[in-house]
Amino acid sequence: MAKQERGTRSRRAILEAAAEVFDLRGFDAASTNEILSRSGLTRGALYHHFPSKEAIAVALFEAHREGLTLPPHTSKLQAIVDLSFAFAARLQTDPVLRASVRLAVEQTSFTRPANSPYDQSNAVIRQLLGEAATQGETLPGLDLDEATEVIVGAFTGMQVMSQVHSNRADLQQRLGSLWRLLLPGLANPGMICNLRLTPLPEAAAPEPEPAPEAPAVD
Amino acid sequence: MAKQERGTRSRRAILEAAAEVFDLRGFDAASTNEILSRSGLTRGALYHHFPSKEAIAVALFEAHREGLTLPPHTSKLQAIVDLSFAFAARLQTDPVLRASVRLAVEQTSFTRPANSPYDQSNAVIRQLLGEAATQGETLPGLDLDEATEVIVGAFTGMQVMSQVHSNRADLQQRLGSLWRLLLPGLANPGMICNLRLTPLPEAAAPEPEPAPEAPAVD
Repeated sequence: MAKQERGTRSRRAILEAAAEVFDLRGFDAASTNEILSRSGLTRGALYHHFPSKEAIAVALFEAHREGLTLPPHTSKLQAIVDLSFAFAARLQTDPVLRASVRLAVEQTSFTRPANSPYDQSNAVIRQLLGEAATQGETLPGLDLDEATEVIVGAFTGMQVMSQVHSNRADLQQRLGSLWRLLLPGLANPGMICNLRLTPLPEAAAPEPEPAPEAPAVD
Repeated sequence: MAKQERGTRSRRAILEAAAEVFDLRGFDAASTNEILSRSGLTRGALYHHFPSKEAIAVALFEAHREGLTLPPHTSKLQAIVDLSFAFAARLQTDPVLRASVRLAVEQTSFTRPANSPYDQSNAVIRQLLGEAATQGETLPGLDLDEATEVIVGAFTGMQVMSQVHSNRADLQQRLGSLWRLLLPGLANPGMICNLRLTPLPEAAAPEPEPAPEAPAVD
């Protein structure tokens, strides 16, 4: 294996191991020993990639930004709604993203970097909301900065409640509830009934192989 | 000092010390040693009142319920809004309530009791929302259980964001933003402009002593 490829793999192994440990124990209680034993790497390899536990946490925040890529849509409000459902789905399945969110929500000894997950989410939502306003999708006079803060904050709250009540199993349902109540305060009334407030339909599953026809019975 | 009174005082001293430590370190990292040294009491006194760290946390949740007492108001929607601002103000000043909220939000090894802070908040808001609906203050057909979950969850999110961004200094402002955006999705439109979306006015400050009149200049 080429040296560079080996380096990329061990970096990823550390991030995944650290994500599991942060997600399980939070930042303060997470130990580098446990991260090492889960990743199967040496302490030297760990410090080669990350000088400190803080540095691992900052790298995990990158995963958050990756979670904010969005399916394109002509309605920018629909794009925001879709993004929230896509992010929720990734939260349910991706320990790296979960760890990033846990680190962002918790009060820990870890000082959040300037470009924290909330800043990243705010920037993406604010951009889309601005485009929605230009297209006439939002209520006239809507304060876009204020609306952005409320959307990101309320999503965070739904996420916390879903985590507490169902270990995130009901996150999509809570998100649908949030959008039903929140949209009348920010969307042009004519838009609302055209918005889909449910997860994006799965990519169409490939057609199953047709079963061999049963031999005709004479 | 009578024995009973001494007992009440030492119980309260433990709760306040524990609240500070939980608020600072979270449940997992909080040590009974630190709680003891802050309270100035003996280990024997601690275990007399609380058999475990969990038992202290459960007692702190009581403080949460006490935070949910509300100023009466003929508009039940206004009562909900007032309650949220009153709760926010107490969060800014009361370490016992802050600790209860931190324990409720965090993922810890502590298993939340059945009657958790969220259940308490939900019950109070659901009751008021039912009364608001009976009085015609809510939109026809509003799902009251769903609206309750969204209100409690979104408040929690505003609280988390305010904690992260300003150590809760801007909580009232974020709460005003939330209500401006959320009310159109749940209130009878005729109600909205009659609702005050700011903190309750402080009890009228006593009139300042009138300044002695300047001697007339002839």
